[in-house]
Amino acid sequence: MDGTLSATRTMQAWRMTGTGEPLRLDEVPVPAAGPGEVLVEVRAAGLCHTDVGILHDATWTERVGPFPLTLGHEVAGVIAGLGPDVTGWALGDRVAVNPAGATRPGLGRDGGYGPYVVALPADLVAVPDALSFELAAAGTDAGRAPYRAVVVRGEVGPGDKVGIIGLGGLGQVGARIAVLRGAEVYAAEPKEALWPMARSLGVHAVAADITAFADAGLDVVVDFAGFGTTTAAAIDVVREHGRVVQVGMGRLEATISTNALILKQVTLLGSRGGTVDDIAAVYAMFASGELFPALELIGFDDIPAALARLHAGEVTGRVVARYP
Amino acid sequence: MDGTLSATRTMQAWRMTGTGEPLRLDEVPVPAAGPGEVLVEVRAAGLCHTDVGILHDATWTERVGPFPLTLGHEVAGVIAGLGPDVTGWALGDRVAVNPAGATRPGLGRDGGYGPYVVALPADLVAVPDALSFELAAAGTDAGRAPYRAVVVRGEVGPGDKVGIIGLGGLGQVGARIAVLRGAEVYAAEPKEALWPMARSLGVHAVAADITAFADAGLDVVVDFAGFGTTTAAAIDVVREHGRVVQVGMGRLEATISTNALILKQVTLLGSRGGTVDDIAAVYAMFASGELFPALELIGFDDIPAALARLHAGEVTGRVVARYP
Repeated sequence: MDGTLSATRTMQAWRMTGTGEPLRLDEVPVPAAGPGEVLVEVRAAGLCHTDVGILHDATWTERVGPFPLTLGHEVAGVIAGLGPDVTGWALGDRVAVNPAGATRPGLGRDGGYGPYVVALPADLVAVPDALSFELAAAGTDAGRAPYRAVVVRGEVGPGDKVGIIGLGGLGQVGARIAVLRGAEVYAAEPKEALWPMARSLGVHAVAADITAFADAGLDVVVDFAGFGTTTAAAIDVVREHGRVVQVGMGRLEATISTNALILKQVTLLGSRGGTVDDIAAVYAMFASGELFPALELIGFDDIPAALARLHAGEVTGRVVARYP
Repeated sequence: MDGTLSATRTMQAWRMTGTGEPLRLDEVPVPAAGPGEVLVEVRAAGLCHTDVGILHDATWTERVGPFPLTLGHEVAGVIAGLGPDVTGWALGDRVAVNPAGATRPGLGRDGGYGPYVVALPADLVAVPDALSFELAAAGTDAGRAPYRAVVVRGEVGPGDKVGIIGLGGLGQVGARIAVLRGAEVYAAEPKEALWPMARSLGVHAVAADITAFADAGLDVVVDFAGFGTTTAAAIDVVREHGRVVQVGMGRLEATISTNALILKQVTLLGSRGGTVDDIAAVYAMFASGELFPALELIGFDDIPAALARLHAGEVTGRVVARYP
C-alpha cells in the first residue's frame, strides 16, 4: 500500500464547541465528497447575526450541531470535488450553497469558517461570472431572506406602497429590493444616522416609527426588527386586505390586535428559508448593479473578532470573510 | 291633487334607539326604492350575535347607525319594487341581501326586523327555488362567513387536515363546509354536550382543546372562537407552512409566538365579509341537502325575546324570524 493514498490532508477551521464557548482554531481533515455530494473550496464566507445567536443563546444552539462544529452558513466558492452520482455540476464551477436547504452548512454540518465544505447538489446555486464570491456569499442569506420576505411572501410589485421596519443588514437589502420591484417604500428606523443611507437606496420616506405612515395606505409591511410592538404596529397601519411579513425575531412573541386583523382582513406571514431560485433572483439583481449591499471584507483570521463586534452591535452592513 | 297619492303606507318595525336601550316597535313608513335600488318584502330575517354586540357594546354601536335604526342584517324575501335604472332583477324574484355589501341592511340602513327593506342590486343573491327563505336568510351571514373563512381564506381542499376551533353557529357550519370540501376535520369545543353533534357533521375527531391535535399535522386551523389563547394555540399546532384563519372576536387581541410563526412560516389570515358569489356557493351546498344548519324558527313578535336569549348564551344554532 502506498502511504500517500491514506495520508489525510488537513486544514484549519474555526469550530464551536458549546454555548458561550469561544471559537477554537482546530486542525481537521479536509472533508471528502461522498456519493451524491460535492466538495466546495470556500472563497468567501459571510458572518451573520444568527451565528451570534448560535454562539451565545442555548435555545439557538440546540437547533444546530452536533459539536464541535465549524460555523459559517453563507458560503461561496469553487467545486473542488465531485462524489459519485453527481450530475449537472463540474469541477471548477463557481457556486454558492443555499443555507436553507438540506446541506445546512455551519448549522447541521461543517460550514464556511474552514476552507472546504461538503454540500448537496440540490442546494447549489451557480454564481454568475460578473459576481464576486463575497457578494455571492452574502447573497445566500442576507439576499435570500429579504428577497423571500419582500417578493415571495410579501408579493411586492410595481406601484405598491411598502413599509420596511428596521434598516439593519437585511432591512437595507429588503428596502432596496422593494424599490427595484417598483414599489414606493416607507422605511422605519429609530437610528437617524441611517436615514441618509435609506434615502440613497431610493426610499420614498423614512421615520423613526412605522406609525408615522399610518395614513399612507401601505399595501405591505415587512418587519425586519421583530420586537413584538413592531408586528402589532404593522398590523395597525397596513391597509385593508394588506399583508404583513414577519422576518425579524428581536423578541419571540407579539401581542397583536385580532380586531384589526379581522376587520381589515390582514394577512400576517412568517418568512424564513428560501430556495435556490430565490438566491438566483438575488444574484441577477446584484449582477445588474442595482442592488449593492454594504460589505465589510475581512480575512480568515479575523472571524472571531468580527463575530464579537457583531455581538456587540458594532456592525452595520454585512461582514464577509474572504479567503486567498 | 289626489290625497291617496301622497298617503304614506306604514309598517311596524323593531328599532334600536341607542346602546343598551330595548328595541322599540315603531310605526314607520314603508320605504320606497329610489334610483338604482330595489324594495324587498322580507320573508325571513336571521338573528345574529352581532346584533347583541350592536345593542349592548358601544364600540360596536358606533360602527352602525344613524339611529333610530331597524336592525336585522340577514335578510331574504321577494322583490316588491324596482327603482329607476335597475336591470337584471324583476318583481317577484326570490332574493337575499349580502350583509357585507354596500347596502348594509340593519347596520347602515334599516334592516330585516321590519317587513320591507331597500337594497342595492349589487348585493342581491338569487335564492334557488329549492331553498327556503329561512335557510337563505341564515346563509347570508352564518353561511357566508364560515364559507369565506374555510374556502376563500383557508383554501381548504380535498385531503386537507383542518382544525375548527369553536362549534357555535358559525363553527358548526364551517366544520361541515370543510367536511364537504373533502377535508379531514378536527374540532375543538370545550362544551362536551356538542360533541355528538360534531360527529354527526362528519368531523373526524373532537376534543376540548385544539392542542390535543398538535401531532395531527393540521394544514389549516380556523378559529371561530377568538379568545386570543385560541389564536396562539392555532399557530402553535398548525404544520409548517400552514394557514390559520381568524374569524372569532371573543377578545380583541392575542399574544402569539412570532417565533413559531417565522420558523414554521405560518400564514395568519383575518377573515370577514364575503361576496354574493360566496353566498351563492353556500346556497348550492344548502340546496344539495348536505349542509343543514340547525335553525330555530320564531315569529316577528318574538324577536326581542330571542335576542335576549342570544345575549344570555342560551341559543345553539341559528334563530330566524319567519314572516307570514
